[in-house]
Amino acid sequence: MTGPNGTGSVGEGDRPQPVGASFHQMWRDLLPLGRHPASHGYRRFAWTGVDGDCRAWFEGQAAARGLRYEVDRNGNQWAWLGDPAHGDAVVTGSHLDSVPDGGAFDGPLGVVSAFAALDELRGRGARFTRPLGIVNFGDEEGARFGLACVGSRLTAGQLTREQAHRLTDGEGVTLPRAMEAAGYDPDAIGPDPERLARIGAFVELHVEQGRALDLSGDRVGVASAIWPHGRWRFDFRGEANHAGTTRLADRRDPMLSYAETVLAARREAELAGAVATFGKIAVEPNGVNAIPSLVRGWLDSRAADQDSLDAVVAGVEKAAGEYAAAHGVDLAVVRESFTPVVEFDHALRDELARILGKDTGLTVPVLGTGAGHDAGILSGSIPTAMLFVRNPTGVSHSPAEFAAEDDCVAGVLALADVLEGLACR
Amino acid sequence: MTGPNGTGSVGEGDRPQPVGASFHQMWRDLLPLGRHPASHGYRRFAWTGVDGDCRAWFEGQAAARGLRYEVDRNGNQWAWLGDPAHGDAVVTGSHLDSVPDGGAFDGPLGVVSAFAALDELRGRGARFTRPLGIVNFGDEEGARFGLACVGSRLTAGQLTREQAHRLTDGEGVTLPRAMEAAGYDPDAIGPDPERLARIGAFVELHVEQGRALDLSGDRVGVASAIWPHGRWRFDFRGEANHAGTTRLADRRDPMLSYAETVLAARREAELAGAVATFGKIAVEPNGVNAIPSLVRGWLDSRAADQDSLDAVVAGVEKAAGEYAAAHGVDLAVVRESFTPVVEFDHALRDELARILGKDTGLTVPVLGTGAGHDAGILSGSIPTAMLFVRNPTGVSHSPAEFAAEDDCVAGVLALADVLEGLACR
Repeated sequence: MTGPNGTGSVGEGDRPQPVGASFHQMWRDLLPLGRHPASHGYRRFAWTGVDGDCRAWFEGQAAARGLRYEVDRNGNQWAWLGDPAHGDAVVTGSHLDSVPDGGAFDGPLGVVSAFAALDELRGRGARFTRPLGIVNFGDEEGARFGLACVGSRLTAGQLTREQAHRLTDGEGVTLPRAMEAAGYDPDAIGPDPERLARIGAFVELHVEQGRALDLSGDRVGVASAIWPHGRWRFDFRGEANHAGTTRLADRRDPMLSYAETVLAARREAELAGAVATFGKIAVEPNGVNAIPSLVRGWLDSRAADQDSLDAVVAGVEKAAGEYAAAHGVDLAVVRESFTPVVEFDHALRDELARILGKDTGLTVPVLGTGAGHDAGILSGSIPTAMLFVRNPTGVSHSPAEFAAEDDCVAGVLALADVLEGLACR
Repeated sequence: MTGPNGTGSVGEGDRPQPVGASFHQMWRDLLPLGRHPASHGYRRFAWTGVDGDCRAWFEGQAAARGLRYEVDRNGNQWAWLGDPAHGDAVVTGSHLDSVPDGGAFDGPLGVVSAFAALDELRGRGARFTRPLGIVNFGDEEGARFGLACVGSRLTAGQLTREQAHRLTDGEGVTLPRAMEAAGYDPDAIGPDPERLARIGAFVELHVEQGRALDLSGDRVGVASAIWPHGRWRFDFRGEANHAGTTRLADRRDPMLSYAETVLAARREAELAGAVATFGKIAVEPNGVNAIPSLVRGWLDSRAADQDSLDAVVAGVEKAAGEYAAAHGVDLAVVRESFTPVVEFDHALRDELARILGKDTGLTVPVLGTGAGHDAGILSGSIPTAMLFVRNPTGVSHSPAEFAAEDDCVAGVLALADVLEGLACR
C-alpha cells in the first residue's frame, strides 16, 4: 500500500504500512524494468524507453503520495512535500539509470529508500519544518553518452549546454536528439542556480560499492569523501595488415602495446595503493585475420589523494609511450573526464553521524569511496552527504550486486532518522 | 571498351583494346563499390547490398563478353567460354568480398585479371581447346559469418548445409536468412561434385600478402603451399565489478589474463618462426567504469609446418591457463576453424613455372603463403595453382593494400600466358 496518504501539507496522512512492506512493494515493481533476460543485468540507459518506464514509475510514486511532481530544465525529476520556494529544503534521492548489465541497487536503492523513508516518517507522525524533496537525477552512469552525472553536472553548471549538445552515443545519436525523442526540450538545458539555492541539504543513500561495512560489521555508514578519479583514453594507432602473411618484424601491431599498458596500469595502481582499470576497448577493424590499425583503451583510475592518482596516470602514460614506440605505434592520450577529491560537508557529515549514533551510542563508520555520485557533483554548490548500505560482497556494476533486505530496511530507517533530524527540528 | 567481342564460340571476336586499358576500366568501375568514405577501406560483406552491386558488376562483365553466366547452388558466380559439359575445363577467378576495411586488391584483382586475360587472349587470336571459366566465389573472407571460404567449402563438401545454416552474423542474422534476402535459395546449398568433376585446373591470381616478391625483385610468382592455419577463441571469464570501488585484491579481472596472453602469443610465435595475432576482441560489459565479466579474444596463428603451429598454440594455451588461474579467471579455448597445410598440385605448379619462364629463361619465384584462399579449399578436389602479384609493402587486409598498375598488368599477361598454355594447347 503506497496510497494517497499525503496531501502536500506537511506531516499529514494516515499511518502507512510498515516500512519493510512499503520498501518491498516498490522494489518489486521496479525490479523487472530493463532487466536483460540473458545476463539478468540492467540496461537502463538515459532517454531510452526503459528509462522512460523508470521515470513513469517515479512520477507514479510521487502521485500516490500526493507529492508535487516536476521535471527541471535538465530532465531531473522532483517530488515535493511542502513548497521548495520557502527555501532551505532537505532533498534526498539518487538515480534510476544503470551501467550496461548493472545491478539492481546502484541508484534505485537511494530513490526507493527516499519514498520509503517518507512513508516511515508519516507513520511516525513526523511534522516537517522544512520542505522535503525526493529527486531522480538523469543519466548518472553515463553509460550511453560516456559522461557520468550529466543531469547534476548541468544543474550545477559543471557542464555547459554546448558541451552537452556535443555528447553522442554509440549509434551516433546526439544527446539533444535523444532528449527530444524522449519528449524533453534539449534547448532548455543549462545551469539551475535558483533551484540549488533553495536546497539546504542533499543526502544521497547508496549501496556501498566496496566491503568496508561488511568488514566492520555495520549495516549503514556515512561517506567522508569521494576519491579523485578520472577517465583517460589511450589511442594506439598501428597499421592494419594481414594476420597470416605479415612477418612479425614487419608489424606495427597496436594490440601488443595495449596489452603491455594494461599490465603497467595494474603495477602502477599496486605501487600507489590506488585502483586502475582497462574495462572498455574498441578495436579497428576488429577482424580475426587482421592486425588492428587502432586499439583504443579507456583507463579508469582513482586514488585516495591527488598525488597518488597523478603518480598512477603519469606512470601508465610513460610506460604506454615506451611500449608504443618500441612497436612503431603512435600513441595519443586524452583525459576524457576528471573529478578532484570531494570532501563532503563536514558539518552535515557530523550531524548525520550524531543523529544515527544518538539512540545506540555507537560510532557510525565514516568511509571514503572510489565511486562518483551526483552528491559529489552537487557538493560544490550545496551541503551534501551520503549514507552507504552494506554490500556483503562489495560487487557493484554487475548483476551480482546485492544488499540484504534487512540491511536495505536499516538504510531506510537511518535515512528516515536523518530526514527527521534535519527537516523536523 | 569491354564490348561484346565474344559470342560464346571459342576464340572468336574482334581485337579488343590493349590489356592495360581493359584492366584499368574494370578496376575503375569496381573501385567505388563498398568503399567507406571515412576509412577508405572496403566493406563488401557477403549477401549485403554492396555485395550485390559487386555481383551485378560480374554479371555485366560476363554479358559484355558474350560469356554464358550462371550462379551455382552455393551462390558462386561463373562465366563460361565454351561448354563446361565437355569437361577438363580451365577455370580462373577469385572473390569480390572483403574483410572489414579491407583493401581494393585482395580478391578483386583475381577476378578483374581473369576478364582482362581473356580480353588479352582474344586480342592474340588464341584458339581455345578447353572450356574456360571465370569464377567469383561467395563469402571468401568470412567477415560476416566468421568462417572463411564458405562458397568454395560448400562446393567442395568441406562444409555441410546444416553447418552453414547455423552460421550467424553479428546482428543475429543467419546465413540462410541473408541468402534469402539477397534472392538466393538457402535450401539448395551443398556439395557440387559434378561441377568440380568438369574442371581440369583452377588457377587463382592474387595480390601477394607479404613482401617476398618485393624482396626478390619479381613482379609475379607461383604459390608452393598454404601454411597450416586456424582460429582459436579464448574466453576469459571473471567477475564484473565497479572499477572505482573494488580493491585490486578482490578483483577477478579477465582483461589482465587476456593482456598477458596477447604477449605470450607473440613470444611463442617468435620462438617457432611462425605468426600469431590477437586482432579481434569482445568485452562484456565494455564499460569504462566496470571491471569486465568476459574478455573474448581470437587467436589467429599460422606456421610453415604443422609441428611449429602446434607448438605455438599449445604454448599460448598453457600460458593463458596459468595467467587465468592466477587471477581467479575461468578460461575456455575453442578451436573455431583449422586448415592443414595445402601443397598445391606439383605438376600444375611446375607447368605454370615452365610457361612463365619459357620466354625469359628466368626462374619464376615459387613461394609459400600464410593466407587461406578458395584455391586452397579446392586443391583437395581438383588440381589448383596460384599466381601472386607483387605488393611493395606487403600490407594487406587494410586500405593501404597496394599493387602498382604495371605489376597488375604484368599479372594479367602472366595469367593470359598460363591460360593460353593450359587451354589453347
